[in-house]
Amino acid sequence: MLLSGGLDSATVLAIARSQGYECYCLSLDYHQRHVAELKAAARVAQSLGAKAHRTAQLDLSMFGGSALTDSHIDVPESPTQGIPVTYVPARNTIMLSLALAWAEVLESQDIFIGVNALDYSGYPDCRGEYVKAFQAMANLATKSAVEGKTITVHAPLIDMTKAEIIQQGVKLGLDYGLTVSCYQADEAGHACGLCDSCRFRREGFAKAGVADPTIYQAKD
Amino acid sequence: MLLSGGLDSATVLAIARSQGYECYCLSLDYHQRHVAELKAAARVAQSLGAKAHRTAQLDLSMFGGSALTDSHIDVPESPTQGIPVTYVPARNTIMLSLALAWAEVLESQDIFIGVNALDYSGYPDCRGEYVKAFQAMANLATKSAVEGKTITVHAPLIDMTKAEIIQQGVKLGLDYGLTVSCYQADEAGHACGLCDSCRFRREGFAKAGVADPTIYQAKD
Repeated sequence: MLLSGGLDSATVLAIARSQGYECYCLSLDYHQRHVAELKAAARVAQSLGAKAHRTAQLDLSMFGGSALTDSHIDVPESPTQGIPVTYVPARNTIMLSLALAWAEVLESQDIFIGVNALDYSGYPDCRGEYVKAFQAMANLATKSAVEGKTITVHAPLIDMTKAEIIQQGVKLGLDYGLTVSCYQADEAGHACGLCDSCRFRREGFAKAGVADPTIYQAKD
Repeated sequence: MLLSGGLDSATVLAIARSQGYECYCLSLDYHQRHVAELKAAARVAQSLGAKAHRTAQLDLSMFGGSALTDSHIDVPESPTQGIPVTYVPARNTIMLSLALAWAEVLESQDIFIGVNALDYSGYPDCRGEYVKAFQAMANLATKSAVEGKTITVHAPLIDMTKAEIIQQGVKLGLDYGLTVSCYQADEAGHACGLCDSCRFRREGFAKAGVADPTIYQAKD
């Protein structure tokens, strides 16, 4: 299971745990701007009783091309047209590939990812058709798959709104105060309240009728 | 372009250069046993006039599950049944994902990989159907693809024998003495002569009628 430390993947972990899965959680330290999410991932994994949590190190700033991996590109603080500059080239493909490697070694046939295609930023690798294509590729890629252990890529949030995701997590007892969504969270994990990710999160709590536990950065 | 430092990917680089491509070569330091191949990759990239050569760092020994990433699993020194333990879970998927990320940042629509499905070890991620499935997934994964810049994953060696690959490289002036194929090459890049990779390489030179430039390790 991919675990970023954000709201969505934490909810996926809660869902998978409620379904009885033993969960091996994988985070990626890709030298992202919002490195506070990695601490959040560790908190969430422990809180929800993950079987294991590992963080792979892979410096995607070697390629750049995103506000999250190139410090010269600012995170937009108001909505933009099209796919925003916070899109990280091939990030989900890289992370799912790592999950596929670990799944094969674990002899697991199930990969979970917290993508959703409604309240999101239009990232191409958050759509159902992408997830299906990754799964088809994965089932030709590995020794296990060739030997008959097919892989399922689960994306339980794919058709849910942010409000529905939050309601589901709350129902499962998830403490969203553990999670960090902000693209430019400070070291303490406090949120800017302005970026796309903060905006979707804040609106989600409002629409869900759930108190927002996010701590926002103090403004001058 | 993925460049391992071995015979196959060096030939792919020679082919792509002969077709006029500006080549950006990507190697992966995944803490492989045969780290000498990375030095070979640098030599090959320079010799063939690559535009750039980068080496990503990603420690796949965190997952293990292969003789190439787990020092407790020996490299077989005679042919084995089925897919051998030198198979690295999801390695080509991980490397192609990284190539996809870099290609998108470079605004390139062409990825090259040196897989071949004849004289090989039966690795699932070296087959044409796998490459096609990766390409289909890639074309749903990226912002560039969604905006109409489709990606082609070129695998020019896919249907060639090792001998044909070598003949093609020699015709293009490639010096195979620069390359290292051995799974347990020593620091100097000298080959064991016993592993699958050495065996395919040695037989390839013999069948191609080309002198084998490989330097083998001195035996006691």
